[in-house]
Amino acid sequence: MALEVPAGYRPLDERTLPAWLADHPHLAARLGGEPAAWRVSEVGDGNLNLVFVVEGPAGALCVKQALPYVRLVGESWPLGLARIVFEHLATTTHARFAPERVPEVHHFDPVLYVMVMERLHPHVVMRQGTLEGVVYPRFAEHITDYLARVLFHTSDIALPGPEKKRLAKPFLDNVELCGITEDLIFTDPYTVCARNRWTSPQLDADAALIREDARLRAAVARLKYRFMTAAQALLHGDLHTGSIMVTADSTKVIDAEFAFYGPMGFDVGKLLGNLLLCHFAQAGHEEVPGARDAYRDWLLATVEGVWNGFARKFRDLWDRHGTGDAFPPALFTGESGARALRRLQEDFLAEVFRDALGYAGASMIRRTLGLAHNADLERIEDPDLRAECERLVLTLGRELILHAGDFRGIEEVTARARALYAHWRARREARSTRA
Amino acid sequence: MALEVPAGYRPLDERTLPAWLADHPHLAARLGGEPAAWRVSEVGDGNLNLVFVVEGPAGALCVKQALPYVRLVGESWPLGLARIVFEHLATTTHARFAPERVPEVHHFDPVLYVMVMERLHPHVVMRQGTLEGVVYPRFAEHITDYLARVLFHTSDIALPGPEKKRLAKPFLDNVELCGITEDLIFTDPYTVCARNRWTSPQLDADAALIREDARLRAAVARLKYRFMTAAQALLHGDLHTGSIMVTADSTKVIDAEFAFYGPMGFDVGKLLGNLLLCHFAQAGHEEVPGARDAYRDWLLATVEGVWNGFARKFRDLWDRHGTGDAFPPALFTGESGARALRRLQEDFLAEVFRDALGYAGASMIRRTLGLAHNADLERIEDPDLRAECERLVLTLGRELILHAGDFRGIEEVTARARALYAHWRARREARSTRA
Repeated sequence: MALEVPAGYRPLDERTLPAWLADHPHLAARLGGEPAAWRVSEVGDGNLNLVFVVEGPAGALCVKQALPYVRLVGESWPLGLARIVFEHLATTTHARFAPERVPEVHHFDPVLYVMVMERLHPHVVMRQGTLEGVVYPRFAEHITDYLARVLFHTSDIALPGPEKKRLAKPFLDNVELCGITEDLIFTDPYTVCARNRWTSPQLDADAALIREDARLRAAVARLKYRFMTAAQALLHGDLHTGSIMVTADSTKVIDAEFAFYGPMGFDVGKLLGNLLLCHFAQAGHEEVPGARDAYRDWLLATVEGVWNGFARKFRDLWDRHGTGDAFPPALFTGESGARALRRLQEDFLAEVFRDALGYAGASMIRRTLGLAHNADLERIEDPDLRAECERLVLTLGRELILHAGDFRGIEEVTARARALYAHWRARREARSTRA
Repeated sequence: MALEVPAGYRPLDERTLPAWLADHPHLAARLGGEPAAWRVSEVGDGNLNLVFVVEGPAGALCVKQALPYVRLVGESWPLGLARIVFEHLATTTHARFAPERVPEVHHFDPVLYVMVMERLHPHVVMRQGTLEGVVYPRFAEHITDYLARVLFHTSDIALPGPEKKRLAKPFLDNVELCGITEDLIFTDPYTVCARNRWTSPQLDADAALIREDARLRAAVARLKYRFMTAAQALLHGDLHTGSIMVTADSTKVIDAEFAFYGPMGFDVGKLLGNLLLCHFAQAGHEEVPGARDAYRDWLLATVEGVWNGFARKFRDLWDRHGTGDAFPPALFTGESGARALRRLQEDFLAEVFRDALGYAGASMIRRTLGLAHNADLERIEDPDLRAECERLVLTLGRELILHAGDFRGIEEVTARARALYAHWRARREARSTRA
């Protein structure tokens, strides 16, 4: 099936890319030397796009091009090229507020739907690092910079009303990728749907139990409604460890094509959910039980650090730059005004926290029962062991969705994760002693 | 000061309007006869626009034209002509869902910023009727048709995600009128602001008390934030008794220039607030105390009928047409699903109710302490009596903002209004007995 594409669009490849780059002197200059000397490799391991790394004598570039379909599935699932327009707009907008936490964009081509960025080196996709048990000591510090600044500065707390509305408007056209989120995260895993998959037959009964849980389905529908209507900030829209590139000293957020004005808790929660999932996946990546206990501790400390750091930095930004139209300083004058603002900030962040836990839970369930899984669990070869890890993910995911409001502080969430794991491990050891 | 206007724009007047209408055969045909025979009168009593009624031998038309400034204030407050573009878009969108509750639009001219509608006859502006104590027996039935259908059918409960986003997008340009709402309703009355006015000196201390109430200011700021971020439905944006034209048998909603995707409770609440204000204003419009008791009862019964009718009709629409992307029927299958949906609907409507009470309170305070007052109170000639009525409006308005969550059902709100009035009347009678 040949998909229709706009006039002038053609997918680039290793052969045609150097000539195209050579036509753009500001890009060619970054590579240096002659096009014949440039090494091109296609590195797209994602689900949607072509991604090339081009290396020249003077430097390297990353070239990302949208394809007119979902790469993971093929041409049978067409997907608009415009998604890279949204990614470009979101990345450059986020760069205004957290320049050191996103890749630098060097060029955008609206005909070829190509964005050229700095090549991140020696960064790896964070999920690769967590599979290997690598600790990123500055990750929580960096990602909370990104989250707090981006979510704060694109919100009505920071912006004049007209400026926020102007920023939000173009993203209302990002309907296809919003639709993917709405379907894949909030609907499919709770229904009988051909796109779903899970470790079978081990989790068949668990999947059925989730599908048949009417209260859970209703709670997920509320999260979906909130995702669709709470235009709080310009979200990344897909912030998990596969959308973050890291070194020990650097953290860069990539792949913002799902960007949309939505609830702040969605970005925060998706990340927390992925880290919690990663925690439960550790049993599948250790030589002997407990070998990765220190890594588990780091992951849960990171979960705590992400929430607490975000909340602290967000409130600090609010105190220093809260001059937007939503909560004008004129309403919070005097000592009683300062007290009222402090309480309002606490309530506001408590609501973001509740949202974040709900979205964390939804992302844990979709990565276990929906279409798109991730390597933390997929790479566990023993299906019985994988299913046991996944069952813990489902258990906590469900609790976070149904009881988000009952957790007082992120430490209660990590304590629960720790307890679920300890309980499972004790049972497992008891089983192996009996065997 | 001459304001800049787009090329081709000129304000129409009684002299030039007939020739312009004659150039549009479909409009001229509705009037019939020759232009010389058409009677034109400018009837705009509103705050913003020119409004003409044109009568011909065969029929009549209403012609509304935007001016490049706020008519109420003058050229010193410029205001974009585009507001009538939003009004036209909102009116025609609302007409798709509640055609009998809005005027029929016959023509729109994007150069002159003119909208031509059916002339509503023998309708009067509802506020005029309530000043005279006229009962509109079908009002609650009609306005709840409008509210339920318009708010439901433009929401994510009814619409596919892409369609909702497409509808919402143009209104993100309606920044000037949103800004007026944000400032005049949610900020000015709670600050020292030259635009504010109130019955002085009688209410000086009351106004200061409102301004100094830090908890109230914080609660109002939350309502403002929710107005700015909760993109639930295509609101009218200014639904009070001055935006509704009525006869005994017909109800038409006009003046949708403030249209915007916002929280459903805003439209419902603004109307409730105006009716409650009107209730407290009755003491200023009766020959002897108590003469309008029956009218008070009708107003409070209407308050109850508006909320209860809206909630019933909204849920009924949801049951019959809730096929939008937010709460897909696939998530609510089976008996347990139906139960979960019922509970979700109850929670959803409880949240709209809380929002509505907050917005009702905010609209009551702004009409007493802010820039734009309304005739219910303004027409009370005795400033002492007016101030006493206004003080009751402020008292209930403040309670509704601060304690919206404590009212279980609209009947508790009307009971409180009734009690505040009865208490005031008893004190007043005691005073006059002593005097």
